[in-house]
Amino acid sequence: MRAVKKTSFPTPEDAEAAFYEAIERGDIEALMEVWSDDEEILCVHPGGPRLSGVEQVRESWAQILKSGQQFKVHLAGQVVVQGMMLSIHSLHENILVQGESRPRPPVVVTNVYQRGTAGWRMIVHHASPSSQPGGTRADPPPKTLH
Amino acid sequence: MRAVKKTSFPTPEDAEAAFYEAIERGDIEALMEVWSDDEEILCVHPGGPRLSGVEQVRESWAQILKSGQQFKVHLAGQVVVQGMMLSIHSLHENILVQGESRPRPPVVVTNVYQRGTAGWRMIVHHASPSSQPGGTRADPPPKTLH
Repeated sequence: MRAVKKTSFPTPEDAEAAFYEAIERGDIEALMEVWSDDEEILCVHPGGPRLSGVEQVRESWAQILKSGQQFKVHLAGQVVVQGMMLSIHSLHENILVQGESRPRPPVVVTNVYQRGTAGWRMIVHHASPSSQPGGTRADPPPKTLH
Repeated sequence: MRAVKKTSFPTPEDAEAAFYEAIERGDIEALMEVWSDDEEILCVHPGGPRLSGVEQVRESWAQILKSGQQFKVHLAGQVVVQGMMLSIHSLHENILVQGESRPRPPVVVTNVYQRGTAGWRMIVHHASPSSQPGGTRADPPPKTLH
């Protein structure tokens, strides 16, 4: 039996904020609250295979967060395509790990959120390594397409 | 002044088929027909930065296709999330380059299509290198989520 999700995210932006706050706090339960459990969710970590389903996705994030490293995630270059039931967010994650003097190489991300009965939830997180500084020259300013 | 697109894609699947056929034919014009020109399109090649806008996207594909190499792209593990105006396709590309005996390492892809006045067009192509064989063990059979 699935646990009932307690948090409702009225907008995709609320879900996205909760997602990155959960990473920064190292809170796996809060992180998994953001993901849909009605759909076959998909997650690709930088350079990694495609993971599907709550079990694989939870396990991968648990591995990342259990290191106890503290992450600061600076988001840049957000582009949003907003539909009625789906919302696509493209952005750069610039990740600083506590104790490291320089940010990690930027990560290019496509996040997809879906509207359900309990608000917006993440259904896709596709992250990939990028050879280029994130959110700077190649990027337009943050923009909502329509 | 923008050229009027001549081809109409009645479904996201039609647009996706045309996209990969254009790559296999090395046809940059057919490839760019699939992309929207009404929106700020986004394209991420494996390990590369995020490109935005028709000019950057065209230039990157022209570079890839002008090599004259012939590509065969075998798609696997398709998962589709279909909305009214947006369609998200997750899949693996297994690319065989003519003259090479083995397929290139699989590429994990998120393609996003948007419905416009002239049918469905691509607005996002996010490809990333994967360490795992595409479309085999980790993948469920092709499935449409809803």
